[in-house]
Amino acid sequence: MSQPEPTAENAFPITPRNRVRRRPARGFYDRTNVHRILDAAMVCHIAYAIDGQPYCTPTAFWREGDHLYWHGSSASRMLRAEAKGIPVCLTVTHMDAIVLARCGFNHSINYRAVMAFGRAHRIEGTEEKLRAMDAFIDRFFPGRSKVLRPPSPQEIKATAILGMEIEDASAKIRAMDVHDEEADYAVPAWTALIPVAQVLGAPVECPRQHPDADRAAGGMAGYQAGRRLDEVMTEMAGLAYPNLAYPE
Amino acid sequence: MSQPEPTAENAFPITPRNRVRRRPARGFYDRTNVHRILDAAMVCHIAYAIDGQPYCTPTAFWREGDHLYWHGSSASRMLRAEAKGIPVCLTVTHMDAIVLARCGFNHSINYRAVMAFGRAHRIEGTEEKLRAMDAFIDRFFPGRSKVLRPPSPQEIKATAILGMEIEDASAKIRAMDVHDEEADYAVPAWTALIPVAQVLGAPVECPRQHPDADRAAGGMAGYQAGRRLDEVMTEMAGLAYPNLAYPE
Repeated sequence: MSQPEPTAENAFPITPRNRVRRRPARGFYDRTNVHRILDAAMVCHIAYAIDGQPYCTPTAFWREGDHLYWHGSSASRMLRAEAKGIPVCLTVTHMDAIVLARCGFNHSINYRAVMAFGRAHRIEGTEEKLRAMDAFIDRFFPGRSKVLRPPSPQEIKATAILGMEIEDASAKIRAMDVHDEEADYAVPAWTALIPVAQVLGAPVECPRQHPDADRAAGGMAGYQAGRRLDEVMTEMAGLAYPNLAYPE
Repeated sequence: MSQPEPTAENAFPITPRNRVRRRPARGFYDRTNVHRILDAAMVCHIAYAIDGQPYCTPTAFWREGDHLYWHGSSASRMLRAEAKGIPVCLTVTHMDAIVLARCGFNHSINYRAVMAFGRAHRIEGTEEKLRAMDAFIDRFFPGRSKVLRPPSPQEIKATAILGMEIEDASAKIRAMDVHDEEADYAVPAWTALIPVAQVLGAPVECPRQHPDADRAAGGMAGYQAGRRLDEVMTEMAGLAYPNLAYPE
């Protein structure tokens, strides 16, 4: 296990808000590391403030180039506020391991995280919303939008899609083994790295499954029990966007 | 699978910031549901704003009653700003399942989430910081602080501990099976609920493990490969705080 290499080219600008100040050696600004971490996730947390009050909301999201999208009811407070173009910070975190040590100070967590900064805008227009709604489905389940009942006019109206161009972003990665001060190896505390991963369980099929339902037709073939969600997400992004490559 | 029952007693006040507006039937304000969700997590996301710019930072945290604690380097921007008492929103999210449906609109995620609101303050004083640093270790690994090399004066100085009294909070829970409009059951899309959970892997022991290291002595016995992290976290909270009960 070791820290990834930053790719020097195609990096986001380093600004006062995305610069990694605490443990800067864990900071990465290249699109390869940032995009990889984003594409391995289904859910992010979005911070925004209304009248000085911060909110932190979990939501599913997806990426197209440097553009991030998420959705919600048109009625939600977050989307109402963000449609005005308020600044947001969209964060993705993968927890990879609990890292024990021989003193409290050196206990840690292995993780891959991205903080992406920009201004949310609302996707307007029926055509563009329909495209985004299908893209939302197909990013996670490539081709599935084709086997679903299409969105109704009421559903399109009731769905708000928000987008954000990433203005600047940084990744922060800890991928290291147990590390202790030399003198502390004499302390007889049991010490290990304990891996953690989001893992898929066995599907619970709908009891009203249609007799002609074909799992392979809807982009679900990769969702096998026991697989890591981050690996499935990365695989699905590659299927949904066949030209996707890191670095892009 | 079904939605949990709210416990009517011992609820947080419902305020403009914690009221669940979107899908209010999924909202809970009672301490039983809020505390349970918090105690099942090791990592949260904290939203705060500096000069109008929101940030969303992942970090380990723990709960004592209605007080939440987290830590970081004294040098970190987040902690410098929060020590002044700025408002924060601390969010915990457990993703439990991907929920497929026969139209895009009814696709969903099963989750348990809490948004907790308050003002962060810095824990001051060597004694109180030491207590908090040991509590941080022992909440996750009950009794482990006793088998570690104690914090050094420099480590205490370099560690900032922040705390926040929960002023108001809400839980939002979706724990439901596939749900489609009646007419859509004729659509032959393969449909299921796909469980997702954070699961522990087999520990990678430190290659310099001390020959006298005793796993049982450091509160690590519960961290068995294949277990769900949320269940281990709940178990550890019960060991660390033997008087813990829901509702409290």
